[in-house]
Amino acid sequence: MQTNRFQDHPSLSFVDWCLRGIGQVVFQNNPLSGLVILGALAFNSWIYAAICVVGVVAATGTAVLLKADRALVRDGLFGFNGVLVALALIAFTSENFRTGAVPSPAMLVYLVCGAAFSSMAFASIANVLAPYKTAALTAPFVLVGWLFLFAVLKFDAIDAGPMAKPISPEQFSDAVPYVVATWYEGIGTSIGQIFFQDNWITGYLILVGIAVNSRAGALMGLIGAIVGTAVAAIYGGPEGAVRDGLFGYNSALTAMALGGVFLALTWQSFFYAVFGAVIASWLWASIAIFLTPISMPVLTSSFVLVTWLMLLGQGTFKALAPPATPEEDRTPVSSKPS
Amino acid sequence: MQTNRFQDHPSLSFVDWCLRGIGQVVFQNNPLSGLVILGALAFNSWIYAAICVVGVVAATGTAVLLKADRALVRDGLFGFNGVLVALALIAFTSENFRTGAVPSPAMLVYLVCGAAFSSMAFASIANVLAPYKTAALTAPFVLVGWLFLFAVLKFDAIDAGPMAKPISPEQFSDAVPYVVATWYEGIGTSIGQIFFQDNWITGYLILVGIAVNSRAGALMGLIGAIVGTAVAAIYGGPEGAVRDGLFGYNSALTAMALGGVFLALTWQSFFYAVFGAVIASWLWASIAIFLTPISMPVLTSSFVLVTWLMLLGQGTFKALAPPATPEEDRTPVSSKPS
Amino acid sequence: MQTNRFQDHPSLSFVDWCLRGIGQVVFQNNPLSGLVILGALAFNSWIYAAICVVGVVAATGTAVLLKADRALVRDGLFGFNGVLVALALIAFTSENFRTGAVPSPAMLVYLVCGAAFSSMAFASIANVLAPYKTAALTAPFVLVGWLFLFAVLKFDAIDAGPMAKPISPEQFSDAVPYVVATWYEGIGTSIGQIFFQDNWITGYLILVGIAVNSRAGALMGLIGAIVGTAVAAIYGGPEGAVRDGLFGYNSALTAMALGGVFLALTWQSFFYAVFGAVIASWLWASIAIFLTPISMPVLTSSFVLVTWLMLLGQGTFKALAPPATPEEDRTPVSSKPS
Repeated sequence: MQTNRFQDHPSLSFVDWCLRGIGQVVFQNNPLSGLVILGALAFNSWIYAAICVVGVVAATGTAVLLKADRALVRDGLFGFNGVLVALALIAFTSENFRTGAVPSPAMLVYLVCGAAFSSMAFASIANVLAPYKTAALTAPFVLVGWLFLFAVLKFDAIDAGPMAKPISPEQFSDAVPYVVATWYEGIGTSIGQIFFQDNWITGYLILVGIAVNSRAGALMGLIGAIVGTAVAAIYGGPEGAVRDGLFGYNSALTAMALGGVFLALTWQSFFYAVFGAVIASWLWASIAIFLTPISMPVLTSSFVLVTWLMLLGQGTFKALAPPATPEEDRTPVSSKPS
Repeated sequence: MQTNRFQDHPSLSFVDWCLRGIGQVVFQNNPLSGLVILGALAFNSWIYAAICVVGVVAATGTAVLLKADRALVRDGLFGFNGVLVALALIAFTSENFRTGAVPSPAMLVYLVCGAAFSSMAFASIANVLAPYKTAALTAPFVLVGWLFLFAVLKFDAIDAGPMAKPISPEQFSDAVPYVVATWYEGIGTSIGQIFFQDNWITGYLILVGIAVNSRAGALMGLIGAIVGTAVAAIYGGPEGAVRDGLFGYNSALTAMALGGVFLALTWQSFFYAVFGAVIASWLWASIAIFLTPISMPVLTSSFVLVTWLMLLGQGTFKALAPPATPEEDRTPVSSKPS
Repeated sequence: MQTNRFQDHPSLSFVDWCLRGIGQVVFQNNPLSGLVILGALAFNSWIYAAICVVGVVAATGTAVLLKADRALVRDGLFGFNGVLVALALIAFTSENFRTGAVPSPAMLVYLVCGAAFSSMAFASIANVLAPYKTAALTAPFVLVGWLFLFAVLKFDAIDAGPMAKPISPEQFSDAVPYVVATWYEGIGTSIGQIFFQDNWITGYLILVGIAVNSRAGALMGLIGAIVGTAVAAIYGGPEGAVRDGLFGYNSALTAMALGGVFLALTWQSFFYAVFGAVIASWLWASIAIFLTPISMPVLTSSFVLVTWLMLLGQGTFKALAPPATPEEDRTPVSSKPS
């Protein structure tokens, strides 16, 4: 592969690992995908693009310092949770969710530590799941994100605004009618929300970044976003939440994960992935309502939960097969018995 | 065994698996037990009996479609969580908890998907617990039930009434005195509540269904219900909650699970099971209070938690022994390493 | 070792195991440490000292009755969670948190059952974590403590006062300035709070108890308490919470666990432990705020979570090494495949 030139380059390799880390948020082990996605973020807000770099560098750097398994580092697997932790901490503490705000020094230290901690959490969760041939997904991000978001709201040294973004279907009006833009914006923003980008054009640009490495992956992501949005429409989700992509981002990730990444893409797994996307959309609403009393966002918990519950038992179902591709080596980290 | 005639019959086998699935809610791998229990539900409400059939068919059918391990399907192990998911979704969205209500088409699709998803969750949880020789119990139901109940209350297309049933001891009056009926109704309803049946006669009929397959099992279930009810009485639980069987249903399941199903029934395991029934009754109250702010019912989470915490470490305690009976093969699903 | 004289003594051995159980709360497998710590508790309140004995006897006795693995019993590993469950139940149901109150008979039965149940939970959690070479830590206590604390507040037979102790940073005034006593009292009380002792002198006496067995351990505990307190000060935690040791007790435990007990103490693991202490202090605040709506104390959940997430993946990081000492055999309980 063309990209291997950099993956082991003495001085450029770290850049390569970090770009792969950005791509791995959407399962793409490809630095060019990461670069296109970084550009898509910058198109929406240079602040988010900069924070994305801070997060991936902090997380990947921590793994290097701790002398982590080199194969995992090279594939960007230590970076993607750090990206998401850093973006989430900015997104939910900025007065303007859409553009984000430049963090204070205390917040920056906090955010870097959160991203670093996500690397340790990744190693732990991946190790626990290794015997079951199931990946950690974004669980380290969800866990660290929730834990770090909560405390931030109470420390004096961090001047967090009120959470600017509605985070639950209950917070949107039920009276607004669906229009055409509900659909094309909602589907695009569903992809954007994976990276906390409230911008539908950024969403479609991220799809381009995915397609650079895998057209099937981009297609499954798009199908997942459409399914999530359609389910919300059929079951009467509020228009504002649909247009904001909130019903779709977990579905997009679930469809990609089950339709080609962790299962071989067949007709059976295609329908399995679509079913997963339906469930992930419902459960976004469910978890959002559950978390409302404590004002926490869902993050990608619905994706993690649905995908785990549909992958951990895969050995029981003969209709499903693991992928025959090198993606398999994403599965991860085995503990090394001495 | 007489019943094996149907278990492998070309056209009747699916009916056999589904009836066993109903029986497996109370650990009985026997189609006749399932049939008697279905009759007990119909005695209370034909709606619940019909929904029970929908749930078990959806869950077992999903397992067949996904080409699940045949041994598990034949023993009804894919059905029992589907039964409970379907019953719970009707019970907690109907205006009249006791009789239930006929679901709308949108609700029916939702409920069938929930039951189907419970089959995947069962495979996953069973697979995770397999190395520890511990069963999934009703954890798939508890998890899927909570997640699906929450979202249902917010979708426009599903016309859910207010939750008609008090779900926590706080919601009952402390001033009502105990009478004789508190006891015989409370103990019977404790068994009924396993299937969300607020009917003490149905409860005793379910015990008959258990006794058809295992008299020891029926006796342990009865003892568990008595223990749970007595603990609530001694510690001053409100009369209404005791008479509704709320303190007893987790205790009944725990006593059965520890006293004969997953441990050989000896004097040691008998006292271990009674101790578990005491704890399960206390923890019902605890979890109910914990869940009150989010208006979620306890379901069988107290049973699952206590039984797991008393079984996962069984290898450490030489006073406890696994059962020497074919029940052992319920333990479940091992992942098949390639 | 001198102490082995008692560990296998026909009649004194049980006393030895129980004293080790008290020491194991702070990782010290040494009866003399346990005795000094018991004295430190008695210095603050004879009630707490007596309850500590009840808890360790109930938990260790349960393990003996169930014929638990003798090696674990001999090292006091069944006792420490029982100690904490018993102390927590008194601390959070007494009108005066500092001295505790003598329990009613119903409460005493409840408390003994809670301590006994913690032994079963310990065996289960230790067994689940055994393949990952990670210890149960105080997770059995946290789980059983939360579950038992909740129900207690609602049973008529147990006359629980209002929770006398503020349990979250939100409940303290932000306006009080830091003084010198904030520091030396806060650091000492951080150690005391591990045992629910709101007394800074008791905290320093507990450190002496640790130093009896391991001076490095006492030093790491002190460093952890200082780090936790300093982090709170830098990030503007309220003075009352800092002086009460609330920001420090999880940090002290985390620093000890990562700096010498479960990882060999090197420069790398020293900084790893300090990093863990920082995170544990932040996450105390986070979990406290999360639990406020349901009025539950954090207990040692922040320590358990951080330490697990930093240990479960240890095999991935070559910069970290397991200890070469007999402490390793604390790791625990393997299920015995037949």
